[in-house]
Amino acid sequence: MSETIYVGADIGGTAIKVGVCSAAGDLLQTYEGPTEASHGADRIVDNIVKYVRHIVEATGHSWEQVGGVGIGIAGFLDIPNGIVKFSNNLNIRNVPLKQMLEDQLGVTVKVNNDANVAALGEAWAGAGRGVPNCVCYTLGTGVGGGVIIGGRIYEGYNGMAGELGHMSIVPDLEAIQCTCGMTGCLETVSSATGIIRMAKDAVARGDKTSLSLVPNLMAKEVIDAAKEGDEVAARIVNRAAYYLGRSMAATAVTLNPQRFIVGGGVAKAGDFLFDQIREVFAKYTQPEAKEGVEIVAATLGNNAGVVGAAGLILRS
Amino acid sequence: MSETIYVGADIGGTAIKVGVCSAAGDLLQTYEGPTEASHGADRIVDNIVKYVRHIVEATGHSWEQVGGVGIGIAGFLDIPNGIVKFSNNLNIRNVPLKQMLEDQLGVTVKVNNDANVAALGEAWAGAGRGVPNCVCYTLGTGVGGGVIIGGRIYEGYNGMAGELGHMSIVPDLEAIQCTCGMTGCLETVSSATGIIRMAKDAVARGDKTSLSLVPNLMAKEVIDAAKEGDEVAARIVNRAAYYLGRSMAATAVTLNPQRFIVGGGVAKAGDFLFDQIREVFAKYTQPEAKEGVEIVAATLGNNAGVVGAAGLILRS
Repeated sequence: MSETIYVGADIGGTAIKVGVCSAAGDLLQTYEGPTEASHGADRIVDNIVKYVRHIVEATGHSWEQVGGVGIGIAGFLDIPNGIVKFSNNLNIRNVPLKQMLEDQLGVTVKVNNDANVAALGEAWAGAGRGVPNCVCYTLGTGVGGGVIIGGRIYEGYNGMAGELGHMSIVPDLEAIQCTCGMTGCLETVSSATGIIRMAKDAVARGDKTSLSLVPNLMAKEVIDAAKEGDEVAARIVNRAAYYLGRSMAATAVTLNPQRFIVGGGVAKAGDFLFDQIREVFAKYTQPEAKEGVEIVAATLGNNAGVVGAAGLILRS
Repeated sequence: MSETIYVGADIGGTAIKVGVCSAAGDLLQTYEGPTEASHGADRIVDNIVKYVRHIVEATGHSWEQVGGVGIGIAGFLDIPNGIVKFSNNLNIRNVPLKQMLEDQLGVTVKVNNDANVAALGEAWAGAGRGVPNCVCYTLGTGVGGGVIIGGRIYEGYNGMAGELGHMSIVPDLEAIQCTCGMTGCLETVSSATGIIRMAKDAVARGDKTSLSLVPNLMAKEVIDAAKEGDEVAARIVNRAAYYLGRSMAATAVTLNPQRFIVGGGVAKAGDFLFDQIREVFAKYTQPEAKEGVEIVAATLGNNAGVVGAAGLILRS
C-alpha cells in the first residue's frame, strides 16, 4: 500500500464527515463525528484533525500516503488563504482554517465552500466523471451551484461564479423576495423551500388540491401529489422545473457546459422532474448550444461533499 | 527593430482589414483591401496573404519578426483545426483556412470567429486591458458576445460560450421570434435591428412620437429622440437597456466576470444607455456578485477585430 490518498472533510453545523479517496476519486471509506461548534473554532479544528487522523488509520494507510486534506464548509471564505471570514451555521468568524490545520497535520490543506466542493465531487468522480465542463445544481433548502471548467472549480471575480440559486429569473410580476434580499431568484421557486411555499400559498388560496389534507407539508409530498395527478401540485413542480430549465438555457450561452448535474433532495423526484427541465431547456436554448448537452442526476448523494473536498487537492 | 510582432486579419464580406500589433497589444498600423469573395476561397486566401505581407513590409518589419497571424471571420468554424465550415457572407464552405495560410506564410496561423476575436481585442488591449475575466457585448445588427477567462477566449463545449445575443431573456408574453428561430432572444430587443423594429411598431401602432416623422428610421435616431425626451423612444431604449442589464445579472452568477465591455453602434449612445444598463444590473444582481464589477464602453471601435486576431497568437 504505497499509493497516495486524498482526504476530504465536509464540515456541517452538527457533524463533520471525513472520507478517503484514491487518486481516481474512488471513495474508500467515510467516518462521521460531532462538530461541537458551540465549543468554538479551536474545538472544531481539533475535531477535524482527530477525524482525519482516524480515517487514515482506519483504512490502513500511513500518514506519508496522505497527498493532502481538503475542506468543504458553508460560509463566506477567503478561498486562496483558506480563511473562514464568517460561517453562520458554525458561528465562527475570521478563522485561518487552512493555516491551523496545516500546522497540526503537516500536509497541504485546501478550503472551499460547500456548494463548489459538492460540484467538484460530482464532476470529478460522480455524474460528471470524464467531462471537463459541468454546471451543478443542488436543490435543497436553497439552490446551490458550482461551475467546473477544465475539471476545476471556477470561482469568478468575486467567488460568485455558480451562485445559480440567486440568478434573478422570475419576471417581476410574479417575483417574490428571496432570503438574500433580491426578488425573483431561482431559489424562490426551485428549492424545497420554494416548492413548500408555493404549495402552502395554493392551500391558503383555497385551490382544489389533495395537499390541503397534508398536515406538515414537505417538498416530497408536493412532488408525490404531482406524480399522482394532482393538478395544483403538478403546476407547482412544473414551475420549479421551468425556471431551472430557463436558468440552464441562459447558462448554455454564457458557459456552454457539456453537462448539467442536478442533485439534492428535490432531484430525487427523478425523471418526472428532469423531463420537464429538459423540455424547457430544449425550448429556450439555441440548437448549437444544446447539441450533445445533457441534464443528469447527481450520483454521489451525500458523499459529494467529502469526495469533492478530497478532490480539491488534485483539482484546484 | 528585432521585437516580435503579431499580425491580425479581420475578414469581412467586402473588405479584409489587417493590422500589426506589438506584444503588448499596441496597434502599430492597419491596411485594408477588397475581399473579392465572389472569386472563391483561393482568391480570398491569396488576398489575405498579400495584405499581410504588405503590412509587415509597410511597417518596416522583416518576416522573421512575425510571431504569427491571427484571423477573425464570421461563420461556423472548426476552431482547433482552423477550418471554415460555412461562412454566409463569404459564401464559402469547408475551407481549411489555417492550413492554406500556413502553407503560404510559413508562420503559425490561428482562426477564430469575429465575435470572440473582437472580445479578445478589447480584453487584451482595449477596455479590458489588465482584467483577466471579461464578458463582451457588441450591439450591432445583432448582439454579438465573447467570454474571456484568464485573458483567453473561452469557447465552451460547443463553441457557444458568449453567444449572448441568443440568451432567451424576454418573458414569453412579450417575446417575438428571433432570426435564429427561437423566441425571446436578447438580440430581438437590444440590437440596432431590435430597436428599429420596436420603433417602427410604435409608429405603426400610432403611438405619439417624433419618430413618426423620420423617413428612414435607424437606431441612432431612436436614441437621439430618447435623449431629447421623446417618451416612446425613451421606453424603447430603456427596454433595450433593461434586457442587457438582466442578461448581465444572469451572467454575474454564472461567469462572475470582473468587467462587462459593451461595443458596437448602439453603444455609441454613451452614458445615457450605460446608466440605464447599470441601474438594472445593480437591481437584479446579488451584492457580492456585483461588488467591483464594471460595465464599460469598448474603446477600440472597428479595430477590435484586427487587434483581437493578432492577440490569438499570444492568447489562445
